[in-house]
Amino acid sequence: MLICKVVKPLVSTNRIPDFEHKHLQVVLDGSTQKVAVDAVGCIPGDWVICVGSSAAREAAGSKSYPSDLTIVGIIDHWDPEAAKAAAAGPPAPNPATPLSGGQPAVVGQISTGGRTS
Amino acid sequence: MLICKVVKPLVSTNRIPDFEHKHLQVVLDGSTQKVAVDAVGCIPGDWVICVGSSAAREAAGSKSYPSDLTIVGIIDHWDPEAAKAAAAGPPAPNPATPLSGGQPAVVGQISTGGRTS
Amino acid sequence: MLICKVVKPLVSTNRIPDFEHKHLQVVLDGSTQKVAVDAVGCIPGDWVICVGSSAAREAAGSKSYPSDLTIVGIIDHWDPEAAKAAAAGPPAPNPATPLSGGQPAVVGQISTGGRTS
Amino acid sequence: MLICKVVKPLVSTNRIPDFEHKHLQVVLDGSTQKVAVDAVGCIPGDWVICVGSSAAREAAGSKSYPSDLTIVGIIDHWDPEAAKAAAAGPPAPNPATPLSGGQPAVVGQISTGGRTS
Amino acid sequence: MLICKVVKPLVSTNRIPDFEHKHLQVVLDGSTQKVAVDAVGCIPGDWVICVGSSAAREAAGSKSYPSDLTIVGIIDHWDPEAAKAAAAGPPAPNPATPLSGGQPAVVGQISTGGRTS
Repeated sequence: MLICKVVKPLVSTNRIPDFEHKHLQVVLDGSTQKVAVDAVGCIPGDWVICVGSSAAREAAGSKSYPSDLTIVGIIDHWDPEAAKAAAAGPPAPNPATPLSGGQPAVVGQISTGGRTS
Repeated sequence: MLICKVVKPLVSTNRIPDFEHKHLQVVLDGSTQKVAVDAVGCIPGDWVICVGSSAAREAAGSKSYPSDLTIVGIIDHWDPEAAKAAAAGPPAPNPATPLSGGQPAVVGQISTGGRTS
Repeated sequence: MLICKVVKPLVSTNRIPDFEHKHLQVVLDGSTQKVAVDAVGCIPGDWVICVGSSAAREAAGSKSYPSDLTIVGIIDHWDPEAAKAAAAGPPAPNPATPLSGGQPAVVGQISTGGRTS
Repeated sequence: MLICKVVKPLVSTNRIPDFEHKHLQVVLDGSTQKVAVDAVGCIPGDWVICVGSSAAREAAGSKSYPSDLTIVGIIDHWDPEAAKAAAAGPPAPNPATPLSGGQPAVVGQISTGGRTS
Repeated sequence: MLICKVVKPLVSTNRIPDFEHKHLQVVLDGSTQKVAVDAVGCIPGDWVICVGSSAAREAAGSKSYPSDLTIVGIIDHWDPEAAKAAAAGPPAPNPATPLSGGQPAVVGQISTGGRTS
């Protein structure tokens, strides 16, 4: 799934009937603007998870919905600067040492509170 | 979905029978030209929404239509310059502050009139 | 769909049985060489339409054929230089004005003779 | 499949019900951060195999799970520096000569112990 | 389909059961390393055809196998240098003139011996 930032709603009056009246959002995937179906109710500025491929259809509500990019979740906390640093930074010298050990995580907050196992 | 600009119709006389006689349009995805099946009736110069992946098939009319890129909607208003500025600009300092608040949106017109909830 | 140029046939004697004896062509997608199943009978130098994703399978003859890129049509006329110019050129100042109006189309020949509506 | 490095868990409280409570991980695909469903139980720093496309759904547990990127395996040993060298290095002068012959492999450890035939 | 070079087998002991014990190979797609399921029995140094998308699953043996990249054939002869030259070279001045005519093909060997029609 992609990590995107919501830019603004998109208005397309002339569209195929299968698209129904679902909300469309312009999202920023890196520096590229794409259009995603909004399945969670997000607002401009939100950092969201976008799912593509055939999974975008079920995520948008039904197996026959013609979406190839659907917003499926809003990220609780996302710091793009920290993320960029992590992406540009050197790989960990020993991949066998998890970042969650004695070494502080380099990217954002590690929060496991919301997870279930 | 991709935001593309329609360039011109494409003529391909020698094509597989499954392609039928549907209109094909050359569209510009960034700086790359692709071919999309036209399901809305657009004209050169239109800014359109193109859906890919397996969703392109249903969008073109049937589950067995062999399209991987289908034009599913015409965008009411699209300002590529504003869009470029937004894409190149710095991210909002605080992602928790929606752009639709006191801060003016940096990209194009925010129009919610056409949306239903 | 992609606009590709056919380079040459590809010979792969050791292949999975599902691939059968269908013709494979090396095609140029921009500057990247890919392999496509030939469903139309093209020759080196042809400019062709290639369909990807799951649609490539049906286009190659059956829902279970393992292709992810199939040549589905030969383009009647394609001028890559004009196409490059269009891709590199500035966007129309007013997207609401279709190029097919008083302004001549900037890319290639607009031919609608082969289309049906 | 992609070779990615696990960065950290991702918390998204507001997500579509179909996403259930499965673990989501931020992974690094080259220099791009993506989100993957964790089907193996990995930890930050692990090098993992991520499967995309429609296969990501079954890999996440069911045909209707809306994932387009699922972590399906943890790589036993992965040396990103050796991998980079291999990717940047010149191609073998004679592709007909397998690297496993008299010529030492240029990338990492060739281990076949875990394979079955 | 992609033209890739086999780098080495990949060992992943901790993987999802659906992956079974099929061979995994690290392959080089341009300068990016990916993981592919080996359905033909190739060795490091081989130039192979890799199929992606949903077709990778059937190619790996069954519709439910969770692969998004499967090696489906070994290329008989592949000269990456000639291929690079073709990719970097200028397009044919007249696309209507097939390269197989009076003009010698610019890329590798054109062999049609293995094809059926």
